[in-house]
Amino acid sequence: MAGVRVAIVGATGAVGQELIRILEERSFPVASLKLLASPRSAGSTLTFQGEALPVEALTAQAFQGTDLVFFSAGASVSQEYAPAALAAGATVIDNSSAFRMDEEVPLVVPEVNGHLLDEGPQLVANPNCSTTILVMALAPLRRAAGLRRVIVSTYQAVSGAGARAVEELKAQVRAWLEGRPLEASILPYRDGKRHRPIAFNLLPQCDRFDELGYTKEEWKLVHETRKILGDPDLPVTATTVRVPVLRSHSESVYLETERPLAVEEARRLLGETPGVQVLDDPEEQLYPTPLETSGQDPVFVGRIRKDPFEERALTLWVVGDQIRKGAALNAVQIAERLAAPRGWRG
Amino acid sequence: MAGVRVAIVGATGAVGQELIRILEERSFPVASLKLLASPRSAGSTLTFQGEALPVEALTAQAFQGTDLVFFSAGASVSQEYAPAALAAGATVIDNSSAFRMDEEVPLVVPEVNGHLLDEGPQLVANPNCSTTILVMALAPLRRAAGLRRVIVSTYQAVSGAGARAVEELKAQVRAWLEGRPLEASILPYRDGKRHRPIAFNLLPQCDRFDELGYTKEEWKLVHETRKILGDPDLPVTATTVRVPVLRSHSESVYLETERPLAVEEARRLLGETPGVQVLDDPEEQLYPTPLETSGQDPVFVGRIRKDPFEERALTLWVVGDQIRKGAALNAVQIAERLAAPRGWRG
Repeated sequence: MAGVRVAIVGATGAVGQELIRILEERSFPVASLKLLASPRSAGSTLTFQGEALPVEALTAQAFQGTDLVFFSAGASVSQEYAPAALAAGATVIDNSSAFRMDEEVPLVVPEVNGHLLDEGPQLVANPNCSTTILVMALAPLRRAAGLRRVIVSTYQAVSGAGARAVEELKAQVRAWLEGRPLEASILPYRDGKRHRPIAFNLLPQCDRFDELGYTKEEWKLVHETRKILGDPDLPVTATTVRVPVLRSHSESVYLETERPLAVEEARRLLGETPGVQVLDDPEEQLYPTPLETSGQDPVFVGRIRKDPFEERALTLWVVGDQIRKGAALNAVQIAERLAAPRGWRG
Repeated sequence: MAGVRVAIVGATGAVGQELIRILEERSFPVASLKLLASPRSAGSTLTFQGEALPVEALTAQAFQGTDLVFFSAGASVSQEYAPAALAAGATVIDNSSAFRMDEEVPLVVPEVNGHLLDEGPQLVANPNCSTTILVMALAPLRRAAGLRRVIVSTYQAVSGAGARAVEELKAQVRAWLEGRPLEASILPYRDGKRHRPIAFNLLPQCDRFDELGYTKEEWKLVHETRKILGDPDLPVTATTVRVPVLRSHSESVYLETERPLAVEEARRLLGETPGVQVLDDPEEQLYPTPLETSGQDPVFVGRIRKDPFEERALTLWVVGDQIRKGAALNAVQIAERLAAPRGWRG
């Protein structure tokens, strides 16, 4: 076979466009690329390897003759159309939450549990962005010293809530400089009862609440982290907060290990982990920030400290571009790892 | 005595100006008000009760004939000049870190440990802003159910780093809208080796680092919380982060109590606490945000949740105006509570 016939559902979205860039950057063996989107976006074009490709309207018939379909258009679209892609014989890598907690479907961060791809599953789920960033930092420490609990507070960029949330932040900043009131109609989430400005503000709500007062985003951090680490009872307590940052999610992580881990050992373990970059030198004031890590592939870890009062606990400051490693890059890495078992060649 | 002869050291700073406003708002029995500042600021005027008052240069002689001096010009100024104020017979309420950990000096949040003022100490320390906001939420829960540990991640406004940090954020936002590079020369802290933009960014560093990789701000949260709560061994683990917010600090707080506390009970306890306002209704998407609480007196608590995996643990989202309750308001409340023991009358 001369390369892989790829389709992207949700090609015009932020993750969809990043997928196109990453397939190009990493020279994924693409034989053909079909770009699919809602009827509203169909008719436009996007560039891949210097060529303008048309965006077509998504239909259940669109998957005929494709080998690999990336879904990145929300859970309801995946739920409706992934079965057609699978029936057409394509491999599906789904970036939505539709199948993540399905016991039959592997939920994969290749550096952490990539072995689940060795048998070439036909449907693979890509985790929630905050979770991918978190488990990249947890996995090497857990492997070395065990993991008893995790407490995480997030600082999430507005692009995680979509392109319209980014436009909303920009418009609010402009309004503020011009002395006009800040108008909000998207954040904290589009279908909510109330909307609040994010410019110069914080919204301690990402997605909707359940009856316990937890958001869906907070539960994703619990359940997806457990599934990826293969640790179904791991206590994970999460508070997710939207911050006026454009791109890259940050996380203040507290973790208790089974056995004590020195700071130097944690730095070494993280530094040896593919996909992780340690940026941690208090003396030189070096630590990751969202502005400095946007557009980059690694998950960055800094401020690695021992809890002064609990010898088995460490704190970390973890930052990663949630559109790259948090979404599109991880999806392409899954595809790369599936190439051998699925029999794809360049 | 017909009222209190008050002086403010650092009158032109953000906290100094807020002190003037709060003395006015709360009708503190001011007989006279002397405004003191660095020679650079001397010569300007500030308004109190409709009257323009001159700002005088701070000298050791300036405290003659004063009853009460608020210091709010940094630790080195307090260290140098507080002895002169005390020697002149004045009561000193110090907003700097100079005397906070001095065993002889009470460190007071009136709603929490105001009884320390009953004997009319001549020197009282006002806590660090993040600490005041934190202990306001912890104290009523600790009183009811004991407290075993606290893990806190902060989201701190730029005004906590001074007026020049606020100007820096504004200039960066303007530059960003005009497509110019973001220049930084103040944050994370003025004397640091490196400065980074705060607009659309996060800086996981408030103040300088020690050899353990903790910042001074993080240690203040440990030591001052212990002292105010009268719990010298309480484990407090803090991560402090500067965020692009103008005013009001927010804190994601995880706490373990000695006995389990139901969410409803925690809401009730906090709701009954003077100076605390519960804003917590997930159904209605009600929780505090910095924009909505700026300029207000209470410390706001929302997102009160049980840790799903630890029945003795709760999480809180605490927000307070760090210039009001976090600094100036608390200082004036200390002064009010000292009026009887110090023999001040209106």
